[in-house]
Amino acid sequence: MGEELKLFRTWSSRYALRVVHALKIKDLEYETIFEDIKNKSTSLLEYNSIHKKVPVLVHNGKPICESLVILEYIDEIWKQSPLLPQDPYEKAMARFWAKFGDDKKRSRGSYCSSSREPQVLRRAANGKKFFGGETIGYLDIAFGWVANLISILEEIADLKLVDAEIFPLLSAWMNNFSDHPVINECWPPRDKMVEKFKAMREPYVEKVA
Amino acid sequence: MGEELKLFRTWSSRYALRVVHALKIKDLEYETIFEDIKNKSTSLLEYNSIHKKVPVLVHNGKPICESLVILEYIDEIWKQSPLLPQDPYEKAMARFWAKFGDDKKRSRGSYCSSSREPQVLRRAANGKKFFGGETIGYLDIAFGWVANLISILEEIADLKLVDAEIFPLLSAWMNNFSDHPVINECWPPRDKMVEKFKAMREPYVEKVA
Repeated sequence: MGEELKLFRTWSSRYALRVVHALKIKDLEYETIFEDIKNKSTSLLEYNSIHKKVPVLVHNGKPICESLVILEYIDEIWKQSPLLPQDPYEKAMARFWAKFGDDKKRSRGSYCSSSREPQVLRRAANGKKFFGGETIGYLDIAFGWVANLISILEEIADLKLVDAEIFPLLSAWMNNFSDHPVINECWPPRDKMVEKFKAMREPYVEKVA
Repeated sequence: MGEELKLFRTWSSRYALRVVHALKIKDLEYETIFEDIKNKSTSLLEYNSIHKKVPVLVHNGKPICESLVILEYIDEIWKQSPLLPQDPYEKAMARFWAKFGDDKKRSRGSYCSSSREPQVLRRAANGKKFFGGETIGYLDIAFGWVANLISILEEIADLKLVDAEIFPLLSAWMNNFSDHPVINECWPPRDKMVEKFKAMREPYVEKVA
């Protein structure tokens, strides 16, 4: 294709992971630049001078920032394996829920704050294999990191956070997504993730002990 | 067309104003439902059960929430007078800046926090009449309320906040946008807006006096 495609990411960034998954689903080749968040490269700081954060996708020299904006861009440029629904209303719903998820995170709310199945999943998944139907799409990718995070937290805490009987939809979707061969091979190294979250938990555990 | 289009708004909501402007630019007929935020209608609470906020656009019985999501939807359904740029990269830039503006607002940052011309305007407008070029588009509509708000605050404070010599781009864009006949006739009643913001300022002014 003669196209140049570079992804600036860190090994664990959940937002970068969205782009990794999208590029994988589209079967695109690209160069990965792993950033150290304590010592960011000059290129990253230039490409994303506003937020100075990963992910940044650079396509033929032009940088695109913000993971959800990048997903839309990828979907528009490379038409194979569409990520967003084709129907404008379904597309609006996918955008609404993805924004809801990111806003929720920012306001420190929890996806599982009530004993009921999280609203976003009940409403958006609606019993389908993936949010968009039979294939992985935009909203699955937007929420994908949750599946990985929950399973890591379950390992660390040695308890089941998402019980299939209490959260049937969430549990089913997590498994469908995480185990999908294309998705599965892109997760960050599990042992490093476990180590990272154990370290984050340490100060709190010590306080309690 | 036999299509049913309803907009739930309040008289002053800046987010609803985005939709008002978009519908006007597209020259679409619709029914307006003015909500009282202290006593929201059952319809609004049902249509936007997640956020319980305006704007909500209801198209043939289906509700769409979140102003930027609504703009994308409108642009996709009604192709006349396109709002988003056609070029995927330009489109990504428009989405990036619109998100930046809304995130900035949420984090209580200021558009004019430095003495320099706000970054978003310097970069996005780049000397053009509107963000997208010669016609009003998505990003103009996303930031449009700023133009109205600044001019109202200037009237209340009786001073020039956006001096054309210090902020040439912002000042030019504000005038181009506010004075555009299609935009101009959609602003909320100016006397009511002045009254509203004067009332919001009152407690602070009293404290200082």
